[in-house]
Amino acid sequence: MSKGIGKEFMEKTKYQYLEEPDRDKGLPQPPLEVEYNPEGIFIELPSIEDIEVKDISLKQAIESRKTTRKYKDIPLTIEELSYLLWCTQGVKRVILNAATLRNVPSAGARHAFETYLYIRKVDGIKPGLYRYLAIEHKLMAVNLDPEVSEKFTISCRNQKFINNNAVTFVWSTSVYRMKWRYGERGYRYIHLDAGHVCQNLYLSAEAIECGVCAMAAFDDDKINELLGLDGENNFVIYLASVGKKNK
Amino acid sequence: MSKGIGKEFMEKTKYQYLEEPDRDKGLPQPPLEVEYNPEGIFIELPSIEDIEVKDISLKQAIESRKTTRKYKDIPLTIEELSYLLWCTQGVKRVILNAATLRNVPSAGARHAFETYLYIRKVDGIKPGLYRYLAIEHKLMAVNLDPEVSEKFTISCRNQKFINNNAVTFVWSTSVYRMKWRYGERGYRYIHLDAGHVCQNLYLSAEAIECGVCAMAAFDDDKINELLGLDGENNFVIYLASVGKKNK
Repeated sequence: MSKGIGKEFMEKTKYQYLEEPDRDKGLPQPPLEVEYNPEGIFIELPSIEDIEVKDISLKQAIESRKTTRKYKDIPLTIEELSYLLWCTQGVKRVILNAATLRNVPSAGARHAFETYLYIRKVDGIKPGLYRYLAIEHKLMAVNLDPEVSEKFTISCRNQKFINNNAVTFVWSTSVYRMKWRYGERGYRYIHLDAGHVCQNLYLSAEAIECGVCAMAAFDDDKINELLGLDGENNFVIYLASVGKKNK
Repeated sequence: MSKGIGKEFMEKTKYQYLEEPDRDKGLPQPPLEVEYNPEGIFIELPSIEDIEVKDISLKQAIESRKTTRKYKDIPLTIEELSYLLWCTQGVKRVILNAATLRNVPSAGARHAFETYLYIRKVDGIKPGLYRYLAIEHKLMAVNLDPEVSEKFTISCRNQKFINNNAVTFVWSTSVYRMKWRYGERGYRYIHLDAGHVCQNLYLSAEAIECGVCAMAAFDDDKINELLGLDGENNFVIYLASVGKKNK
């Protein structure tokens, strides 16, 4: 059924075929983050200036990075989680109503992502599904029902190792944030951008003795449903499991 | 013409629709790198053990990274170029006829890339188009005709700033290396993987006072033609310009 779709996608998203994007038609740009209910449950994260994370050398981080599916049974601190979120999606500056500047590069500074977390072992945080509000540098509870754990594992194609991690990062895209400027070619860019984000997770995890396993194989419909995403305007594109390394 | 292709691509590459990939049908896996003519012109690169690059902290690299389109008019050393190639695609280990382990993560260790370089200012290297042989950690001349410079700029949609850089990285994919294992969904993965690679370029460039500008907007047909790629089995997916930073 899917045969040939990849080739067709690459062909039809060649630069020469792109139509005028909505930005150039003068249509308003979408918000910098997906709306949320201000009546929710929020968790403040320690700000990056207050975090003491052992700094490591860049070369060491790059060379020692290694996909890791086995983890020690110890939790992350909230400072460590805050550090990983800062390195992957942390907002350095908001240009009002226009763009965010973050710790990762993004095509046209579109930053078309939201970060969800399935937290299992972080000190002081109840396990469950959360969303990271990057601009506010806060967590928001999405679903703390214990049954979500199994559903989450199933949506990750039952890869059992994620049951033993500390936290799974889930990056969804709010794709119009990218399409508004780049049209259909933007579907390439969200994946390129997600790769930037995930690489910063791999590297920053090294600083806190954590290992990462990126996951691009997941049940799209199941995970979108679990996160309450419609699968068309907002949908998951990449995940990564994080936990303390076995030395 | 391209309207709706992104949505269709995401839909048809959902995990549940994937057909049995060639690997699972028992078909032989493609080679770990694209073949090349052994009669070519090669340039040895200093091996990573012999390179003295100032190491910087990971946190500093992440936080100081910034898209850079203006460069100082000074060349990179061959050691610095070797370091950037090592950090982005360097092969740590070859598992014979099976996979390569590199300084970046890749879905199923497929590493479906070749790296081309358009070199303008690297000490001791004649300007022109080169290919990096990752397994051999060598450069191979592809086209040293001075006319290539202008064609290259045009294929990058005439973004003049690349005329003043030191080197442009061009990542092409040999897509069957990925499809062999992951089928059509592999077209997502090559973009995710290219994001990992580019992020390591951004960060490692910080260690040598270089700035980077990633480029996902290019004339697909023109650049593929210039590199001698057929555009279907082998094609460019991402580029990045590198040069010494103006302080």
